[in-house]
Amino acid sequence: MALADGSGIIRIGVIGGGQLARMMVPPAVHLGLRISVLAETEGSSAERAADRVGDYRDPETVFSFADTVDVVTFDHEHVPPSILRELESRGVSVHPRPDALQFAQDKILMREKLTELGVPVPAWAAVTNEAELQEFIDTHGGRAVAKTARGGYDGKGVRVISSAAEVRDWFTALAEDGRGGALLVEELVDFVRELSQLVARRPSGEVRAWPVVETIQRDGVCAEVLAPAPVQHAQTHSADSSGCRSGGTAAVVECDCILCTAARIGLTVAEGVGVTGVLAVEMFETADGRVLVNELAMRPHNSGHFSIEGSVTSQFEQHLRAVADLPLGETAMTAPAAVMVNVLGGPAEGPMPVRYAEVLAAHPRAKVHSYDKLPRPGRKVGHVTVTGEDLASTLAEARAAAALFD
Amino acid sequence: MALADGSGIIRIGVIGGGQLARMMVPPAVHLGLRISVLAETEGSSAERAADRVGDYRDPETVFSFADTVDVVTFDHEHVPPSILRELESRGVSVHPRPDALQFAQDKILMREKLTELGVPVPAWAAVTNEAELQEFIDTHGGRAVAKTARGGYDGKGVRVISSAAEVRDWFTALAEDGRGGALLVEELVDFVRELSQLVARRPSGEVRAWPVVETIQRDGVCAEVLAPAPVQHAQTHSADSSGCRSGGTAAVVECDCILCTAARIGLTVAEGVGVTGVLAVEMFETADGRVLVNELAMRPHNSGHFSIEGSVTSQFEQHLRAVADLPLGETAMTAPAAVMVNVLGGPAEGPMPVRYAEVLAAHPRAKVHSYDKLPRPGRKVGHVTVTGEDLASTLAEARAAAALFD
Repeated sequence: MALADGSGIIRIGVIGGGQLARMMVPPAVHLGLRISVLAETEGSSAERAADRVGDYRDPETVFSFADTVDVVTFDHEHVPPSILRELESRGVSVHPRPDALQFAQDKILMREKLTELGVPVPAWAAVTNEAELQEFIDTHGGRAVAKTARGGYDGKGVRVISSAAEVRDWFTALAEDGRGGALLVEELVDFVRELSQLVARRPSGEVRAWPVVETIQRDGVCAEVLAPAPVQHAQTHSADSSGCRSGGTAAVVECDCILCTAARIGLTVAEGVGVTGVLAVEMFETADGRVLVNELAMRPHNSGHFSIEGSVTSQFEQHLRAVADLPLGETAMTAPAAVMVNVLGGPAEGPMPVRYAEVLAAHPRAKVHSYDKLPRPGRKVGHVTVTGEDLASTLAEARAAAALFD
Repeated sequence: MALADGSGIIRIGVIGGGQLARMMVPPAVHLGLRISVLAETEGSSAERAADRVGDYRDPETVFSFADTVDVVTFDHEHVPPSILRELESRGVSVHPRPDALQFAQDKILMREKLTELGVPVPAWAAVTNEAELQEFIDTHGGRAVAKTARGGYDGKGVRVISSAAEVRDWFTALAEDGRGGALLVEELVDFVRELSQLVARRPSGEVRAWPVVETIQRDGVCAEVLAPAPVQHAQTHSADSSGCRSGGTAAVVECDCILCTAARIGLTVAEGVGVTGVLAVEMFETADGRVLVNELAMRPHNSGHFSIEGSVTSQFEQHLRAVADLPLGETAMTAPAAVMVNVLGGPAEGPMPVRYAEVLAAHPRAKVHSYDKLPRPGRKVGHVTVTGEDLASTLAEARAAAALFD
């Protein structure tokens, strides 16, 4: 690690040039860390910091990039595990480590690991043919969620089905791939809302969690995030609630409320998979009061964008600190409420700044983030965060500001 | 302007590669504005964003840089006025405009303008020889402050003298320069503290002010900033104080308290000089309850670094919005108190990150900013900001964290 050389120069390399890499640049500039990005294409969202453009699936490209930095981390989970293991065997610091990252790369491995850890998950199975899949569907109410084990994001690679034939193309692709892969199938969970627990962990073991947030998805894509997640009626804390929703570690142990349960699950997963960097644990809150883990992401996550303004330490700063094995920052909220609303699609006529004259005048409190992307239906091109005293007013303002980019 | 072309691409060029340019990069990344920097040297603080390295005193270097951006602004006030006027005559958007910037470039012009505006200033004179200077000293208590009209900063170009002979070298330099320049001499003000009012103004005339802050200097260099400036005993507001210290515009008009007086002066100067971008008005609060303007800076300023975490809109974001003629953001505090402490000199062994293992562990709430500069006695290499509920605790924590970099 760079710290060990005592030079004060810490070079962090990010594989992937999307908005997550882009949003790591501001905290790197403030902390005086040197960040470089291996972006897929010229003109990618993180181009500002892109020292290099190249294919993350090409081993030599990744190895030569790694030679220029002190630690390698990621904007996405798609780098082949074989390349990551070779990096480690060459002595490169890679965070999260391949042994942890595999659980975010492969949903079947994730389900196996969570089950081993005793973490509540939806009923699931790994299925290798239509007959196995149909049997699962038939024994779970006639509908289920089928997922490709690898490569999915933002609703891609996920289908709600009532017949195995609806994912015949996926079985065909698996057969052509020839590596004997399986599909994941899960029960269709009757959930009342979705929650997310962001946790940061550094190689030395220090862990910090943000408050549990509520996420609102549309068409499988994150649309809105409410921080902290509102306490619902009848979800009172069973223990002394002082600090109960602070996102800390000790206070959540004794309490059985939904949010503390979710926090406890997040912390269990972070330790159990040995993540380094930021981990997002996405969960369902069910109608019958259970919390089930849905997905894991081992990087800054859309459910944590609120933290740029809403937390003392943002998920992007924390991720840099964690992967560089620096002490973690406080994760308390900077205001009672923070709401993030994604800008999906964007203005038909161009990147978000085409609307700034109107939006910034109408919403001087709104913090507007543009990923400098061209508009495309459903594409995440930016987001708006508003912090304030109460959820209702911050939600209303963030929605109104984001809507002006439609 | 770029906005007019409707592309959504807004390119801002910053002349000067110091920490002020560096700290414009994070809000540019978040807003999706394209920022480039004309830095003096390789390895400058703003190198992250430096598309170009060149001499700002060379007209062709500046003109070719300006061709690549939609608006030109500054990290310092040292670009020769002749170059700036030529840029404007070529149709380049330059903010602040040369007609305003001259008052930050030349302290004699500044004193003349402020006097014309009716703004209270220390007694002053422009002197061209030792006899004139000695006469001023003799009629103002035997001591005075001599300043070079141009090129000073951070205490450079400022001397407290009791004899004209103490600045003989400056007169010699003026004579050799041959342009008939003068020195500025001012009464030595008996002040109880220093205040600063940051104001942003855009070309269309919109103005936003932050709360007045108290600045604490050591050896002529800003050491600490307290935001908002504490209300001193017996400085009660004379009008209804609701919103009195909010940094707004309307509420300050009727109130005669020291802080509202300072705010009113700041707004008067912003309008009077026609600034575009961020203006810092540095003021003395005197023992007899007056407020006198000391210096002007037309760019983000050390007294506004607290705003990165302490304000809804930071001075760096606001400067970009202002020079791009975008609507300005709200300037309210994000917490009751914010304190910034400069790191002067820095760790003997290297840039600030050499101490991060210790400092970040001890102060998880502190927001640490490193300008990625090598240590040098007295050099501004970074700063620490802490926000919180009260001034005493935030000041203590910010001081403690900054001290660990000594």
